[in-house]
Amino acid sequence: MSDSSAPPMTTGTATPATSSRRYPRPRLNRLGLGPGKMARLKRLLYAHGPGGGTLLVLPIDQGLEHGPVDFFPNPDSLDPQYQYDLAHEGKFSAIALHIGLAEKYFHEYAGDVPLILKLNGKTTIPSDAQAFSPLTGTVEDAVRLGADAVGYTIYVGSPAQDRDFLQFLEVRKESQRLGMPLIVWAYPRGEAIAKKGGREGLYAVDYAARVAHELGADVVKLNYPVASEKDAESPAPYNTLKLSPMEAFRKVVQSAGRSLVLVSGGEKIGDEELLKKVRASMDAGATGIIFGRNLWQRPKADALRLTREMHGILREYAQPPA
Amino acid sequence: MSDSSAPPMTTGTATPATSSRRYPRPRLNRLGLGPGKMARLKRLLYAHGPGGGTLLVLPIDQGLEHGPVDFFPNPDSLDPQYQYDLAHEGKFSAIALHIGLAEKYFHEYAGDVPLILKLNGKTTIPSDAQAFSPLTGTVEDAVRLGADAVGYTIYVGSPAQDRDFLQFLEVRKESQRLGMPLIVWAYPRGEAIAKKGGREGLYAVDYAARVAHELGADVVKLNYPVASEKDAESPAPYNTLKLSPMEAFRKVVQSAGRSLVLVSGGEKIGDEELLKKVRASMDAGATGIIFGRNLWQRPKADALRLTREMHGILREYAQPPA
Amino acid sequence: MSDSSAPPMTTGTATPATSSRRYPRPRLNRLGLGPGKMARLKRLLYAHGPGGGTLLVLPIDQGLEHGPVDFFPNPDSLDPQYQYDLAHEGKFSAIALHIGLAEKYFHEYAGDVPLILKLNGKTTIPSDAQAFSPLTGTVEDAVRLGADAVGYTIYVGSPAQDRDFLQFLEVRKESQRLGMPLIVWAYPRGEAIAKKGGREGLYAVDYAARVAHELGADVVKLNYPVASEKDAESPAPYNTLKLSPMEAFRKVVQSAGRSLVLVSGGEKIGDEELLKKVRASMDAGATGIIFGRNLWQRPKADALRLTREMHGILREYAQPPA
Amino acid sequence: MSDSSAPPMTTGTATPATSSRRYPRPRLNRLGLGPGKMARLKRLLYAHGPGGGTLLVLPIDQGLEHGPVDFFPNPDSLDPQYQYDLAHEGKFSAIALHIGLAEKYFHEYAGDVPLILKLNGKTTIPSDAQAFSPLTGTVEDAVRLGADAVGYTIYVGSPAQDRDFLQFLEVRKESQRLGMPLIVWAYPRGEAIAKKGGREGLYAVDYAARVAHELGADVVKLNYPVASEKDAESPAPYNTLKLSPMEAFRKVVQSAGRSLVLVSGGEKIGDEELLKKVRASMDAGATGIIFGRNLWQRPKADALRLTREMHGILREYAQPPA
Amino acid sequence: MSDSSAPPMTTGTATPATSSRRYPRPRLNRLGLGPGKMARLKRLLYAHGPGGGTLLVLPIDQGLEHGPVDFFPNPDSLDPQYQYDLAHEGKFSAIALHIGLAEKYFHEYAGDVPLILKLNGKTTIPSDAQAFSPLTGTVEDAVRLGADAVGYTIYVGSPAQDRDFLQFLEVRKESQRLGMPLIVWAYPRGEAIAKKGGREGLYAVDYAARVAHELGADVVKLNYPVASEKDAESPAPYNTLKLSPMEAFRKVVQSAGRSLVLVSGGEKIGDEELLKKVRASMDAGATGIIFGRNLWQRPKADALRLTREMHGILREYAQPPA
Repeated sequence: MSDSSAPPMTTGTATPATSSRRYPRPRLNRLGLGPGKMARLKRLLYAHGPGGGTLLVLPIDQGLEHGPVDFFPNPDSLDPQYQYDLAHEGKFSAIALHIGLAEKYFHEYAGDVPLILKLNGKTTIPSDAQAFSPLTGTVEDAVRLGADAVGYTIYVGSPAQDRDFLQFLEVRKESQRLGMPLIVWAYPRGEAIAKKGGREGLYAVDYAARVAHELGADVVKLNYPVASEKDAESPAPYNTLKLSPMEAFRKVVQSAGRSLVLVSGGEKIGDEELLKKVRASMDAGATGIIFGRNLWQRPKADALRLTREMHGILREYAQPPA
Repeated sequence: MSDSSAPPMTTGTATPATSSRRYPRPRLNRLGLGPGKMARLKRLLYAHGPGGGTLLVLPIDQGLEHGPVDFFPNPDSLDPQYQYDLAHEGKFSAIALHIGLAEKYFHEYAGDVPLILKLNGKTTIPSDAQAFSPLTGTVEDAVRLGADAVGYTIYVGSPAQDRDFLQFLEVRKESQRLGMPLIVWAYPRGEAIAKKGGREGLYAVDYAARVAHELGADVVKLNYPVASEKDAESPAPYNTLKLSPMEAFRKVVQSAGRSLVLVSGGEKIGDEELLKKVRASMDAGATGIIFGRNLWQRPKADALRLTREMHGILREYAQPPA
Repeated sequence: MSDSSAPPMTTGTATPATSSRRYPRPRLNRLGLGPGKMARLKRLLYAHGPGGGTLLVLPIDQGLEHGPVDFFPNPDSLDPQYQYDLAHEGKFSAIALHIGLAEKYFHEYAGDVPLILKLNGKTTIPSDAQAFSPLTGTVEDAVRLGADAVGYTIYVGSPAQDRDFLQFLEVRKESQRLGMPLIVWAYPRGEAIAKKGGREGLYAVDYAARVAHELGADVVKLNYPVASEKDAESPAPYNTLKLSPMEAFRKVVQSAGRSLVLVSGGEKIGDEELLKKVRASMDAGATGIIFGRNLWQRPKADALRLTREMHGILREYAQPPA
Repeated sequence: MSDSSAPPMTTGTATPATSSRRYPRPRLNRLGLGPGKMARLKRLLYAHGPGGGTLLVLPIDQGLEHGPVDFFPNPDSLDPQYQYDLAHEGKFSAIALHIGLAEKYFHEYAGDVPLILKLNGKTTIPSDAQAFSPLTGTVEDAVRLGADAVGYTIYVGSPAQDRDFLQFLEVRKESQRLGMPLIVWAYPRGEAIAKKGGREGLYAVDYAARVAHELGADVVKLNYPVASEKDAESPAPYNTLKLSPMEAFRKVVQSAGRSLVLVSGGEKIGDEELLKKVRASMDAGATGIIFGRNLWQRPKADALRLTREMHGILREYAQPPA
Repeated sequence: MSDSSAPPMTTGTATPATSSRRYPRPRLNRLGLGPGKMARLKRLLYAHGPGGGTLLVLPIDQGLEHGPVDFFPNPDSLDPQYQYDLAHEGKFSAIALHIGLAEKYFHEYAGDVPLILKLNGKTTIPSDAQAFSPLTGTVEDAVRLGADAVGYTIYVGSPAQDRDFLQFLEVRKESQRLGMPLIVWAYPRGEAIAKKGGREGLYAVDYAARVAHELGADVVKLNYPVASEKDAESPAPYNTLKLSPMEAFRKVVQSAGRSLVLVSGGEKIGDEELLKKVRASMDAGATGIIFGRNLWQRPKADALRLTREMHGILREYAQPPA
């Protein structure tokens, strides 16, 4: 095991709610990155955002994934320029979005706000039973636009995973050929997942982390696993694991191997809880956070204040490139 | 927020039926358009039709989409030359139709009536449950024919959205490569939509506007949302919104972001109602209108008279290119 | 002979210096043009410039072909924006230039000034003995930029004509595939031409006109043949022809068949001579003129005045599309 | 004329050796750049090097172009790591070099030192009579490596210009397709140039600037024209022009139009003369400098000291993006 | 300077004929190699031959390059099986040859003797004035055959260098794409070289080393420079350099930068001189040797004895991978 200083994962042992332990992140120079991926990732990790090898990403793909419903809490957020301005003023590492929002707005922020082009997406309207996220853009689009990374959603466990893997294969090959870092949104989905503890359970999230890692993700975006009574329906030994939230997330980070981990914000939660989540994620070895609704559903001044606090936390985890 | 003069969208508040307020349209020089899209769009917006940055489009794809049934109210309309002549004499910004009507008639109007080549379509014969509109032409066809834009129908919410998005991806890439403006007919469809307030409801139309914007539409053709008791089945907060028709449409225009908005005429309605719809659409920030049956189902003299009235209204909204 | 009303070309007969005779131009609907070429050509012939089926084109490729030396007479002309502004304010049918001047400036004039993208060019520095003009752009570039025609220089008679014809073949095929009008700069060149009366002689210009026509030019740009004592070295019967300048040019126009003819201005000449040339060209059946140095080597006010006069003359030759 | 504040170029008039006049640089937002070129150029112009829209580039292609002979004055410079370290420590805007030096060293500087991949080159061994610089890399190589621009040498006036233009065409198309800024090394060469005032004369450099601009250079690297008695052999009116060095360079910058200008250092010269050249170049409207031998032929401490002084000068010319 | 322990190259100074000084080789993990090149190179450097990061290569392309004339000294050597057996029994790191000898014999040694597929070659029959070595195989051939590297001859300084560079570009791109180590035979050739000290002079060999490095060689095969009176015709400062053979070779190795160096054997020489050359090469920082005629022109027992001695020497220079 490369990360030899890490303690063996304890199972079923009570641990204090907060740990002073900090687990290391994968080191950039051991990831086998070619020069293009290295140059672009270092730009995100060191030259923008909080720096020091951390990531603070603002996603704005919810208009496609959830519909305009997400913009009601803060009507200003309906205009994509709001999120661009927030990313710019809040000095985010990057903004992540689909081709339409890139073509129509990015030219005014090019060179100031790094771009992660999300390459596939879908609406939430039809059933998720056969969840599959078709392409909305290509790696060549990302190159043409001057993006620094691409994003791809894999629905781990979906009955449509065969089409998904094949579609991902082409994206992965192109991202390798053109030196473009590949960030995988690894989401458990489908009825089989529903029967095995649900999409938020540790079994599902842990498996999703490993799948993204095995298929070639440079970075993997994960949700924090949520313990619930449905865990009992997970395959053994997940059904009997008693891990603290932090231990559970550490487990997931380890399953992601040398794929860097980005933590999702999910639905809007309170300030304190949010900042605690940032710290716990970084302690567990995450490389950064990708919070959307938790930021742009707030008025801008509020969002910027919270962003500054997150900058402060992430900078505590700064480390030199290698 | 760029549109800083726009008031926050009010929710559940009664407003007067007519508003003297005019919302601005997106400005052409901020859309990130390359020179070819710019040259062709400006041709439609300024050199033909009412000009001043507005659009008045005559669609004649109903023979494919609905069948010859639509031509019974005005038997002359069965001959595509009728619509071409109407577009020519009525000085429309463009005529929109499929490849067959382009190949067989356009050569006689080339240079006089700008062409929008519709690139996909279907019949209304089989069930719409898996609505999907296959390609009938290509962007290269449009270039070869001397068209100034292409049109593509996305059935937002259809279970077939994965095939639809992938087909659209190729069209979008080609339209970008060849500098051809891309107009999206954004139509909610499918059983899931039916269960969420129906395809005319604000939830559906609003989502469709955003999907077209996120996927890269330069222009999006939308139906006016229609309030009904089915709205109660929409996802929150749509199920409790109380918006005037104009507020509802303004909301939809905002969801379309920097994609210019064309308003559909839909089924034939009365003159006064029609002209009121034009004015309300333009007040809400639309760029123009695309009325078919409401025009060519009338005798030509009648249609031309109505067209002249619409010219008059649209010219009230003229603005310089930048 | 289609132009049955034209008198047989008289040879060796003295004619008055000015003729009241006007020869017709080829009619657009007899050229076998596909819809794209038709739409674009009609835009140049009817919707811009003097209209009425005439052309008034401003070329600015001399910076490449001759070098900045051509800009000394009018230092303002060194900035390509000068020519764009002149084309815009002077309401030219189109501006003709290379890819660099298109990419960097055309976006500000798109939709206002039609673009003819010149597709090949060379410098005047190395010897012209093997004159060949390599590609600087492609028909797809022209489509992408929203151009309405492409231009190609053929050096008729050059020892490099085999490479030239093959390169032209590809351009011609692409322009056909994409419906882009093809304008040929037909220039006699090379030592063989020098020995047969020189590049300005009737033999050379007449042959060049026919070559462009045979190879598929939609429009051919020709120089006015210049009679000189070198004509005696031309092949028979050119060596003994005694044609007035107008007869000679009429001969050349006839050799161009159904390729429309544009007349070059060449080096700067006096106002009166220039306008007389315009009228004589149109009388001889030319479709329009392409004058560069004669216009932009003058101060703008002067150039615009002269342009207005040319508009006036060309409008005398207006005719309906078909 | 866009640069309306610029005085007409005076000819044959004595001017003071130093001028307080500063000519403006082209503004980035008027260059018609797509988002990728914009993002990458702004990175070089604002996020690295002296910033403020200026460029300070370190080239290290002399090992190929001249051979190891150039490294004798400073033996440390034989190791490419020397130049990389100098670019890094001296905070250059970018380093410019060929594929071999990129593949073997750049991975250690990726993210810190922006890369300009030089795409063609040749040795100085065979005769320059038919000067032609074959490809050594591709635009896709540059994308894969994470470069921010590509460089291409055109030998203006060479008898091989036909091959050169055609090779350049492919590079230009790829750079456009992939959003990669294109820097042209515009070098007059060949016997025809030798007979027209030589490759350092104003005629040659001025023509080269315009050729690069016409063919589509985003940035053009130029040598300072050098007045000599050979100027008398230049074509008129260059043979009689009496311009100060600064006036001559201003003329060249104007011929480059909206292509940004980089000034070459050429052979090693004294400190004071070098810094004076920087200031004069920027006064004339250049965007930056590209000095190689003048820096890396010095011991590192010396080179860094000089670099700091150049930073200081360039920062005096800082201006916001637009 | 990375190799900070290296003394500055002394110029014109006498040094002892033998030096106890050993210069380091480039370290494998700093070469920017992708995983395929790394895996294949490490196989040659560590798992076959003398190991320890050294190379002992047996070339048998002389039958093409020189003709069967080279096989007269040892008639057994005419049968390619002789060299294969020698490579096998002598435990060479690899055998280097053309496609014909690979197709017909390698299958019997596959897995035992690593293969370097030579990809271009020519006969010695026509004049070398325009020396150019056309392709005889491809990188895909090498993959198909299970080769561990490919070889390519560049004739540095040949008038045909433009075609050579372009051909090499394709080979280099393919070797990068397929992870195949690329060994360049860097040979000075052509009349210009003949006039600048000849192809064996330090100027020529030094320039050739740098060219291979700049163009992307992973390994470069070089001849030992030979001092002669022709050096006086070399460009300065080569014409006055007074370097010992070892100093001269050290200079060449430095010019090759991070390209590993293989030393050619050239024509057959005496045992003692040969072994001395091996040791001197390794002292100078070479990675290994590639001796053909010096081995297979001897009877096998003799060749194997000499090979064992070279193994012994190379093992003295063993070092761990990183």
